[in-house]
Amino acid sequence: MDIVIIGSGNVAAVLGRKFRAAGHKIVQVLSRNAKAASELAYEWDTESTNYKSTINKQADVYIIAVSDDAIPEVAEDLKLPGKVVAHTAAAVSKEALKNITAHYGVFYPLQSLRAGMTSLPDIPIYVDGSDEEAKTKLSALARSISPEQVAVAGPEDRMKLHVAAVLVSNFTNHLYKLAADYCQQEGLDFRQLLPLIEETALRLKEISPKEAQTGPAIRHDRETIQKHLELLNAYPQLKEVYLLLTHSIQQGN
Amino acid sequence: MDIVIIGSGNVAAVLGRKFRAAGHKIVQVLSRNAKAASELAYEWDTESTNYKSTINKQADVYIIAVSDDAIPEVAEDLKLPGKVVAHTAAAVSKEALKNITAHYGVFYPLQSLRAGMTSLPDIPIYVDGSDEEAKTKLSALARSISPEQVAVAGPEDRMKLHVAAVLVSNFTNHLYKLAADYCQQEGLDFRQLLPLIEETALRLKEISPKEAQTGPAIRHDRETIQKHLELLNAYPQLKEVYLLLTHSIQQGN
Repeated sequence: MDIVIIGSGNVAAVLGRKFRAAGHKIVQVLSRNAKAASELAYEWDTESTNYKSTINKQADVYIIAVSDDAIPEVAEDLKLPGKVVAHTAAAVSKEALKNITAHYGVFYPLQSLRAGMTSLPDIPIYVDGSDEEAKTKLSALARSISPEQVAVAGPEDRMKLHVAAVLVSNFTNHLYKLAADYCQQEGLDFRQLLPLIEETALRLKEISPKEAQTGPAIRHDRETIQKHLELLNAYPQLKEVYLLLTHSIQQGN
Repeated sequence: MDIVIIGSGNVAAVLGRKFRAAGHKIVQVLSRNAKAASELAYEWDTESTNYKSTINKQADVYIIAVSDDAIPEVAEDLKLPGKVVAHTAAAVSKEALKNITAHYGVFYPLQSLRAGMTSLPDIPIYVDGSDEEAKTKLSALARSISPEQVAVAGPEDRMKLHVAAVLVSNFTNHLYKLAADYCQQEGLDFRQLLPLIEETALRLKEISPKEAQTGPAIRHDRETIQKHLELLNAYPQLKEVYLLLTHSIQQGN
């Protein structure tokens, strides 16, 4: 397909690379950030523009990969009749695009994307569309970059997936940060924990998180928990997190 | 080195494989669990025994890889004068082994080990020893299986590392479990989150957890947080965890 990418941030950069790797052509990058847009355009051997008035009207699909807040601004006055247009936000209604075309939708990548990432990860995609045309084209595009991880999800499921993503990504990363801060304060090398962090994530391919749960909390090992809490007296924020998660593990079910 | 492995659980199984892969010889497996011991002995082409009275007295190093509780029982009446003997527990004093030999210590693997794991992970090792003989031999053994991730750690540092390991492994795994339960209740496929879980862990090789933090909490995106909390009304335990971690992220520093 011929694709116009609107936006030049992390999601735009990685999706564009995925599209190209799957054989699609990026025919234009449109972004108000002229520098980032021209860098992506150079990488992709295509043209960039900073003005909606000069948008390429010949593409098959338009992907709006900008921050949630910026979607209304992009949609304002944009007219692409007959074209398929989608944004990439979990928490924004597809109706935000309804004045652009009759074939609008959502193309939500359930992944943490960074322009600087050195390899392209698997990206499960959840699509939604205003009509068959939008659903069919967006699903085909999604399957081309993620053959086995495409599903249709309406706004409610998208929001639920977003909650789950916050748990397993934003919150686990916060635990990594608390541990990194603690290690730094105590003169320990946080990087020594990376193999453990990696294994804890990768073992889920083989066993469920319920089967994988170990540690003093689930063993109800009061003596060890008590020793840990004493070490955390100087870290009230961390201690509160430790207590709540230990309690939550012990609630079980 | 010639090594006797005492124990036949997850840590015994994986350390034994690592030792063999590094060219050491397991000369005996000693465990009260006859079946598990003979299975490991078969795998390693060596002998097994269930009785301390028949322990092989010709090895260089003895690794006691049993649960914390079982260490005193193993140590009782065991005499290996002149030999180097270590346990693998973060939270147990090395002095638990002082009646066995003058050269006792700890060989703590900072990793989540499962007998059924299909590949051998990196295992940072923290050693401690009662004297130079114990420290030197245990450090050499550790470096042979983990060339770049060996350090000496006394009981206090070991306990601090254990706290950090609980944060990044037991607690993150609990978040995975909460998310898996939530997905199951809501009819979503938890396995679709695995690429995100993996990327969240692996990106720490490239960026710090502080740089990696994203999501509604750190953006102070009240509207999205409010929508998430509404979805969690039927999940009081999960909602409490969501609120506390969101608050903890926003405390920043």
